[in-house]
Amino acid sequence: MYRVGVIGGGQLARMMHPAAIALGIQLKVLSETDGSSAHAATTMVGDYKDLSTLRKFASTVDVITFDHEHVPVELLQEIEREGTPVRPSPGALIHAQNKLVMRQKLTKLSLPQPAWSEIRNQADLKDFLSGKDSVIVKTPIGGYDGKGVRVVSDPADVGDWFEDISKYGGSLLAEEKVRFVRELSQLSARSQSGQFVSWPLVQTIQRGGVCSEVIAPAPGSEHLSNSVEIAKSISEGLGVVGVLAVELFEDEQGRLLVNELAMRPHNSGHFTIEGSVTSQFEQHLRAVLNLPLGKTNMKMASAVMLNLLGVDDQNTFVEHYAEAMENFPDAKFHSYEKGARAGRKMGHITLIGDDWQKLLARGNQARQILYGNAE
Amino acid sequence: MYRVGVIGGGQLARMMHPAAIALGIQLKVLSETDGSSAHAATTMVGDYKDLSTLRKFASTVDVITFDHEHVPVELLQEIEREGTPVRPSPGALIHAQNKLVMRQKLTKLSLPQPAWSEIRNQADLKDFLSGKDSVIVKTPIGGYDGKGVRVVSDPADVGDWFEDISKYGGSLLAEEKVRFVRELSQLSARSQSGQFVSWPLVQTIQRGGVCSEVIAPAPGSEHLSNSVEIAKSISEGLGVVGVLAVELFEDEQGRLLVNELAMRPHNSGHFTIEGSVTSQFEQHLRAVLNLPLGKTNMKMASAVMLNLLGVDDQNTFVEHYAEAMENFPDAKFHSYEKGARAGRKMGHITLIGDDWQKLLARGNQARQILYGNAE
Repeated sequence: MYRVGVIGGGQLARMMHPAAIALGIQLKVLSETDGSSAHAATTMVGDYKDLSTLRKFASTVDVITFDHEHVPVELLQEIEREGTPVRPSPGALIHAQNKLVMRQKLTKLSLPQPAWSEIRNQADLKDFLSGKDSVIVKTPIGGYDGKGVRVVSDPADVGDWFEDISKYGGSLLAEEKVRFVRELSQLSARSQSGQFVSWPLVQTIQRGGVCSEVIAPAPGSEHLSNSVEIAKSISEGLGVVGVLAVELFEDEQGRLLVNELAMRPHNSGHFTIEGSVTSQFEQHLRAVLNLPLGKTNMKMASAVMLNLLGVDDQNTFVEHYAEAMENFPDAKFHSYEKGARAGRKMGHITLIGDDWQKLLARGNQARQILYGNAE
Repeated sequence: MYRVGVIGGGQLARMMHPAAIALGIQLKVLSETDGSSAHAATTMVGDYKDLSTLRKFASTVDVITFDHEHVPVELLQEIEREGTPVRPSPGALIHAQNKLVMRQKLTKLSLPQPAWSEIRNQADLKDFLSGKDSVIVKTPIGGYDGKGVRVVSDPADVGDWFEDISKYGGSLLAEEKVRFVRELSQLSARSQSGQFVSWPLVQTIQRGGVCSEVIAPAPGSEHLSNSVEIAKSISEGLGVVGVLAVELFEDEQGRLLVNELAMRPHNSGHFTIEGSVTSQFEQHLRAVLNLPLGKTNMKMASAVMLNLLGVDDQNTFVEHYAEAMENFPDAKFHSYEKGARAGRKMGHITLIGDDWQKLLARGNQARQILYGNAE
């Protein structure tokens, strides 16, 4: 009997559940609230920043992993000291929690990334801005889905962050604004014993800082085969165990630059549920349990994934299933059972087939039906 | 919000759960015992033959469906009268419960089936045996996986059944022993509004009356395209809603004869989880909710499924996962989290790819590892 504990009850924990059911793995989730997206696997409701809650949860599982990267590493180190393995380990996870730590490590590993600088005060930022119209400034911790990221042309643009700078560990991160032609994501997994596998490089299309669509494999990406080496260097260099998503920019010269990291199943890998022989959710469970990893090849030539983002506080999309399913019998619909809220990630659609352009067009039409905007 | 209630907590209810999680459908299971295979979706534990239990369960869901066909139809009729839809309806389900009723109905529908006779006493059976070495005798109700089926050359061979004949409704069913070249299964689904879809005809390999392997599509089955018409006639003729499995014999003349029916997801359709655009479990939920049905095409050319039958009261197979996964990274392993018992259906393995013969050979090797018999 394998027992995996997941901290966080969001859609990623939710989507680990079907993989766990198939394999006969007991999945136990520590959710922050009742009725979370992962409610069917929730065995404890409590605060993941409370050591006694974590301890109690840890006592019920063989290994702990994550739905998100917000658990303080000091608490995780204590849980490990007390005997429950934490995967990815706190020492690896810190690179997904803190973007400054990540940039420093990637520099040491000589991996390609945007020019960056640690910003302690307005003068530092003025220096980094010198000769540039604008740069990207990020809070090192706590950001997600476009939050904690700003395009800045004057230090005053992040004046509020400077006021609160102790909240971010005393520094901000500034990065050059990369003139990229597109965004990509390289998904991989590494097991505790060091086995490494990767899925095809995918293209991600962001809208308002949030992932909107994913095309797998990324069209015309033969010249970008070093994405796997980059992912492997990061996975091994940081000691990642589990799924690793490396978000990348492709610049105008066809070079890849590392944008962000996530050490868990990732939005850019949802297509693997239907599209790949082994999904990212199954793979993550296998990796953290130190089971051998599964094949990652595509079942059909292409897959596209379209996020369902809340349009208002009413439409949960499920009410439009009948119309969408009638018109798109090949589309796979996913609902995370979240309350409706504008902009919220509430579900997704996946289509697999031979021609990604047709799949994407059909996916967009299906999404419009769920959004209540069908023509 | 869609709420589906499943009576019975076996592996079929268990495998509906991932499909329900993906679509955001609330699955609620009435299990007979704590710790059933479908424990993660179990919302009530009780006796499905108790009307007050059924009533209480029905009040929590929008529609009732089944993991097995053993719920007395009178109770289901009462539940329907009180306002909860039951799908398949009691009037359809009776044909899966009672093999005599099924044979009578198929005769009325002029569908191809073995010669058969209702047997009320030893004299009836002696008549049916006349001129034959042996025939098949079945209890009309309560049989499964080879139980309630005997090869009979003398009425005394089922003397015990005659003694208990009132338990079987006063009759037995005798059928000619078909000289078949192989066994097949035609899986289909029909929604409440009458939409009908079918998956490819598959070959089933039985050992000791229990399904052992499934090959999808059935090799060399181009001449058997009438299997879909047979399934459609049965589905419509009996008013089936949900998944219907029609087990068939192919005789020496290449004709199909109906062997048995099941009105629920079926062992011969487990390959659809990985192999088909829409799995039988998702389709069953869509059908009973009267949602439009999904596409049933194969994702890759072939799929094979191998059952994991208990070998003793110790081996749950999961303990051999590491070795099996290392050698067969393309195999998908399923455990039903059942206690070990010789002969019990405890899980299955699916492989998909281009060449069914290679898949079957690899699946057999993977199964031998799980059985603890690796070379």
